[in-house]
Amino acid sequence: MKNFFRLISSRDFLELYDRFAPLDAEIIPLAKGLGRILAADVTAPEPLPPFSRSTMDGFAVRARDTFGCSESEPALLNIAGEIVMGRSGADLTLAPGQAAIIWTGGELPVNADGVVMVEYTNQPDTGTVEIFRPVAPGENIIRAGEDFPPGATVLQKGQQLRPQDLGVLAGFGIIELQVARKPVAAIISTGDELAEPCRQPEPGKIRDINSTTLAALVEECGGIAVPLGIIGDDAGSMLAACRRALALPADMVLLSGGSSVGRRDFTLQTLEQLDGSEVLAHGVSIRPGKPTILAKTGNAALFGLPGHVGSAIVVFHLFVRPLLRKLGGAGLTSGLRLIRAVTAEQIPSTIGREDFVRVALEWGEDADSPPRAVPLYGKSGLLNPLVRADGLLIINRDTEGLDRGEPAEVMLFP
Amino acid sequence: MKNFFRLISSRDFLELYDRFAPLDAEIIPLAKGLGRILAADVTAPEPLPPFSRSTMDGFAVRARDTFGCSESEPALLNIAGEIVMGRSGADLTLAPGQAAIIWTGGELPVNADGVVMVEYTNQPDTGTVEIFRPVAPGENIIRAGEDFPPGATVLQKGQQLRPQDLGVLAGFGIIELQVARKPVAAIISTGDELAEPCRQPEPGKIRDINSTTLAALVEECGGIAVPLGIIGDDAGSMLAACRRALALPADMVLLSGGSSVGRRDFTLQTLEQLDGSEVLAHGVSIRPGKPTILAKTGNAALFGLPGHVGSAIVVFHLFVRPLLRKLGGAGLTSGLRLIRAVTAEQIPSTIGREDFVRVALEWGEDADSPPRAVPLYGKSGLLNPLVRADGLLIINRDTEGLDRGEPAEVMLFP
Repeated sequence: MKNFFRLISSRDFLELYDRFAPLDAEIIPLAKGLGRILAADVTAPEPLPPFSRSTMDGFAVRARDTFGCSESEPALLNIAGEIVMGRSGADLTLAPGQAAIIWTGGELPVNADGVVMVEYTNQPDTGTVEIFRPVAPGENIIRAGEDFPPGATVLQKGQQLRPQDLGVLAGFGIIELQVARKPVAAIISTGDELAEPCRQPEPGKIRDINSTTLAALVEECGGIAVPLGIIGDDAGSMLAACRRALALPADMVLLSGGSSVGRRDFTLQTLEQLDGSEVLAHGVSIRPGKPTILAKTGNAALFGLPGHVGSAIVVFHLFVRPLLRKLGGAGLTSGLRLIRAVTAEQIPSTIGREDFVRVALEWGEDADSPPRAVPLYGKSGLLNPLVRADGLLIINRDTEGLDRGEPAEVMLFP
Repeated sequence: MKNFFRLISSRDFLELYDRFAPLDAEIIPLAKGLGRILAADVTAPEPLPPFSRSTMDGFAVRARDTFGCSESEPALLNIAGEIVMGRSGADLTLAPGQAAIIWTGGELPVNADGVVMVEYTNQPDTGTVEIFRPVAPGENIIRAGEDFPPGATVLQKGQQLRPQDLGVLAGFGIIELQVARKPVAAIISTGDELAEPCRQPEPGKIRDINSTTLAALVEECGGIAVPLGIIGDDAGSMLAACRRALALPADMVLLSGGSSVGRRDFTLQTLEQLDGSEVLAHGVSIRPGKPTILAKTGNAALFGLPGHVGSAIVVFHLFVRPLLRKLGGAGLTSGLRLIRAVTAEQIPSTIGREDFVRVALEWGEDADSPPRAVPLYGKSGLLNPLVRADGLLIINRDTEGLDRGEPAEVMLFP
């Protein structure tokens, strides 16, 4: 009997991911943290800054000693000393009527609660300073803990770490991070017609494109790709390759192969035969990507992807990416940017099916206008449109197509 | 004498980069190519596909043998054989009136010029096929070289390699890539008040934030960061550290330090003293980032960055990033995305100065409306606004500020 598809919508497909749990956390050094996903909130272990600091070059003062002063009636203060950079301000205590020389970032002396900028002072002699403008308590200083009091949430679980976030962690002396483990995705290309890219293919064979593309897609979104090579069109090899992948252990297996109907059925049967496996989806009402298969064994996901690399890329962005991100602790989104464009020509579609059309974007002179999305058609299987595309234009299920000049959303390639 | 700034505009600053040449190329394996910049055009070394292929499951035919057929008057062809996947089509030649079983991706037999989808056929017996719909020559096939003829430009010099680009290179058997060498940026933090993040700082000292942040920024835009640690506030140490950086050899040296006027002068003097150095800029009419210094020795760039990490990040994105990208072969742009937002409140500025205001973006219900940009003010030196910011709102030189609700461009953090 022919295995007819039971098509589900892309939304229903994503809802299946409720059944997969995020991966465990691991500890990594701060210097390796860029782009990783926090596995736990980070709270301030100590106040930041650890002491009250000046934000200006000038004189640390007791603010009340400057109240009422002006250009014509400067406050006259005795210079009690200088806070040399890197020395503690605790070594110097200001008595009423005293000031201390201080530099940007220096620790305030005891009793100081404001800093007068050097521009508003004059030193008639080495021991005295005239202050021309009053300062309020707290002016030109950052108090201890003003940036982050102890216990404050600094960064949140699920956040992807940016350079500035890592800097703040360094400021707290947090040199080890608890992040989600990177998901491991095994990649298997199937097809008797495939040859390794490093070899001259025999007659009738072509070089495998999918392994390289899928490995880079996995890497690009923070996973670890383990390409397991090419397997031939036989059930035994595919089953053995899936078992090898799961034994890595892989968190995800990406199978891609030719697009013949026979081979699709064959992938489905293999996935059904794996120990403890359950086929969650077989067919999605999208184009391209209809023959996508999702199975699950333990917490591992197995995808049967279309054989054409262009279709496999669409399915990767729509479905594989969100699951990789969820497993990696980042929440269930593709993480791809959506922008608004207008169609450069009429684009037909079909009711009941979401279409993802490869487009090149053309920006006009006017920076405020959305770009024109030019569909890159071409016969199924051509690679040329793929290298020229900037993203995928989305046509919803409930429309028969878009007219020229209609607004549409484009999911940008990363 | 005091070193007054000679402020230049950010545009003039970027024009100074004419004086720096892109780095040499290097050869890397295909598997390491993601995100790298091509150092030369890639042309097709052979036709792709290497032979004419079917894009459907069905029957390879001589198209003229199907002309005029229909549901009621099918064309009757003899099945000459099957093109088994991975076998050459050259082993089978179609005589007039013959067809061959073929699968998606299979090589066409000799004399075939079209494929009839299996859906439009019927096999009354194993040796015969009825064809219900005619095909035109070229239908449901990709001819040899139709995707890329030999010599066609596949990818261009300066392009950043994406997963699909790597896939196409694999398809051509191009397993070594000529890419621009990654620029090496040495990072030096200066200040007697700084301590390594791994240590409990002594009283009056704080942990170095800039080294970690700048290293991650360099890494994020494709460079190799070499943090050289913290040096104290003395000219000898700074000169020695710069010489050590240039001997790596570094393509770029990022010096950042406290923001006191004395320390700035000191950085300038050090950069002037380096062998063969020339100070190209000292001061830019932007806020924050005014005290930025750029010097050059050989083809190496030396930056004096503001001490506050928030200001250093702004200068990095505006100036360091474009130069890193130019050195790395990607052309002189920041590579950061600009989006249109509307101000959530009034934002003051000053004529003659570009302002870069840290903002958080808030999207409303309506996906078509631009986000609201909420300025994250806070005292100079606070880190808190930095971890909450999504990007920098740009206020041009010729405006005194923006009213609430005005449109403005926001440069998104990567």
